Amino acid sequence: MGQIFSVSDLQARVQAIFSRAGMNDVQSGALARVITAGERDACKSHGVFRIEGALRTLKAGKVDGTALPALKPGEGSAIVRVDAAGGFANPAFELGLPELVARAHDLGLAALVVNDCTHFSALWPEVEAITDQGLAAMVMCPSYATVAPTGGIRPLLGTNPFAFGWPRPGRDPYVFDFATSVAARGEIELHRRAGKPLPDGWALDASGQPTTDPEAALAGAMLPFGGHKGSAIGTMIELLGAVMIGDLTSPEVLDFLGTTTLAPFHGELILALSPQKFAAGRAGDPFARAELLFEAIKGQGARLPSERRFAARARSQEVGIELSDAEVAQLDRFLAQGLDAIA
Amino acid sequence: MGQIFSVSDLQARVQAIFSRAGMNDVQSGALARVITAGERDACKSHGVFRIEGALRTLKAGKVDGTALPALKPGEGSAIVRVDAAGGFANPAFELGLPELVARAHDLGLAALVVNDCTHFSALWPEVEAITDQGLAAMVMCPSYATVAPTGGIRPLLGTNPFAFGWPRPGRDPYVFDFATSVAARGEIELHRRAGKPLPDGWALDASGQPTTDPEAALAGAMLPFGGHKGSAIGTMIELLGAVMIGDLTSPEVLDFLGTTTLAPFHGELILALSPQKFAAGRAGDPFARAELLFEAIKGQGARLPSERRFAARARSQEVGIELSDAEVAQLDRFLAQGLDAIA
Repeated sequence: MGQIFSVSDLQARVQAIFSRAGMNDVQSGALARVITAGERDACKSHGVFRIEGALRTLKAGKVDGTALPALKPGEGSAIVRVDAAGGFANPAFELGLPELVARAHDLGLAALVVNDCTHFSALWPEVEAITDQGLAAMVMCPSYATVAPTGGIRPLLGTNPFAFGWPRPGRDPYVFDFATSVAARGEIELHRRAGKPLPDGWALDASGQPTTDPEAALAGAMLPFGGHKGSAIGTMIELLGAVMIGDLTSPEVLDFLGTTTLAPFHGELILALSPQKFAAGRAGDPFARAELLFEAIKGQGARLPSERRFAARARSQEVGIELSDAEVAQLDRFLAQGLDAIA
Repeated sequence: MGQIFSVSDLQARVQAIFSRAGMNDVQSGALARVITAGERDACKSHGVFRIEGALRTLKAGKVDGTALPALKPGEGSAIVRVDAAGGFANPAFELGLPELVARAHDLGLAALVVNDCTHFSALWPEVEAITDQGLAAMVMCPSYATVAPTGGIRPLLGTNPFAFGWPRPGRDPYVFDFATSVAARGEIELHRRAGKPLPDGWALDASGQPTTDPEAALAGAMLPFGGHKGSAIGTMIELLGAVMIGDLTSPEVLDFLGTTTLAPFHGELILALSPQKFAAGRAGDPFARAELLFEAIKGQGARLPSERRFAARARSQEVGIELSDAEVAQLDRFLAQGLDAIA
């Protein structure tokens, strides 16, 4: 069963839900775009599933659904700053993107800082908005303290996503976007519901001892991916994506919200680099040379990250996006009841 | 037994060896500084041990010991470029550093591209030269193709080091510097010599199957750290630290040299970011806030990266650097015989 939506129909439906909940057009539009993009790419964890959390955060008063982000150009510098004004990160990113792109093309590299935002979406939509402009992108932000540093015993770091993209003219870009924890919190929750033990190395219990019990893990701490190296990258993200840009670190986010059930309030750092500027005067076209690398990766049977996502996108654009009856019913309820639909 | 050197005496001795081998002062001086820094910090794998490889590469004609690096400022951009002119990376980095620092302070962030260099040293000396100027640093470069991408079967990526630093006024900086392979090639070699099997997950044999046999691993491929996430970061380094800057990728380096016994010829990407510029107008001092994060890490029993290295440095500065009799004899032989000491 279920119901098929075109990408644009689903986007309109999602935006209507956020409008009904009292959000202004820049907020509701940007959220509808990223949530629909997640559903379109078969990233169910970042699709319509996310609407409820966004509404819950709105109802809790922890995000301003009527915020108007403000561009703060910072003349003559390579830093573009957008004050999200307590709204969601997505409209702030959209506002800053053209100036980021212009400066990266002009200077070779530039940064977009988004301050005072609530961020719940994947980073790849932002990465792809930059690669669409012929630029490479590196994006990072903190989260809430749920991950113990390697050698530690308690939550301190966030799941701190790290994303990167490389433009491939005429093709889907090279994009990765991953949590710097060994697993996402949602995966631990799925093990708990299924009554299955966790793999070794995923988590610590509340006393700081390794555990494979999902319940104990949720009361304890997750671990970084890749041991001390992943822990170092997670720490780098706290420094660059929080401390450096004057926004909350993962432990500060958790203090501020008091819960991991609301979307986190923090900042975000986005770097854009111009391969054309960096390669200027050197032999070889960087875009053509990158293709040789990708061919070599695929030629030995390895996959490029995001391949499955792009395949799902192509399917969705052709045949539409299918939602289950339960998902459609939930959308209908959100549309009918607004924030009253949130317990 | 052994012999104790002061840091400056050892540096002069190492520089004299490179001069004796025909190198000019900028090359020999920069190499002596990084090699002595490695020995001083008890990074034996980047200390006097590295002299032989540098001389071997020189003797093979794969690096120009008399090169004069040239600064190519690229006016008005955030990219500073240094043509290493076929010499070592280290003097090229030293030449570009002041301009990188000036632009990062001015623009908020800037990049130093080093092209056409031979690079065999750790990245932390470069990271620390940047953090010494109150800037955060991110440094990366390729290597030779010895690492299979996750899901692949053959060497393609390099061990591609990734390094980061955050300045801590009045203290040693926060610095990490690691290979994006699960282990360094030297560690596999050590297992081979000791007749010990490798841990699971380190390597593939020549047919692409997982192996714990060091011999088979050396004939096959190493694996990235952290599974597909580390593989993605290694690929990002090929793209940003090689393709984007118009220099050789790890497979191209191996083609060029035909061996992993010579130091690799490629480029290097160095980013510098100004916490003061990024935090401007925001509440809180970024350096003070970073200390809270470091205290929280250490407060739960985890270590900061490089702590052991800084402790060794303090000892070396106080009591000198001890070399074994064999090491001293080798230095004497290099000084007496120059390149004739290399088989």
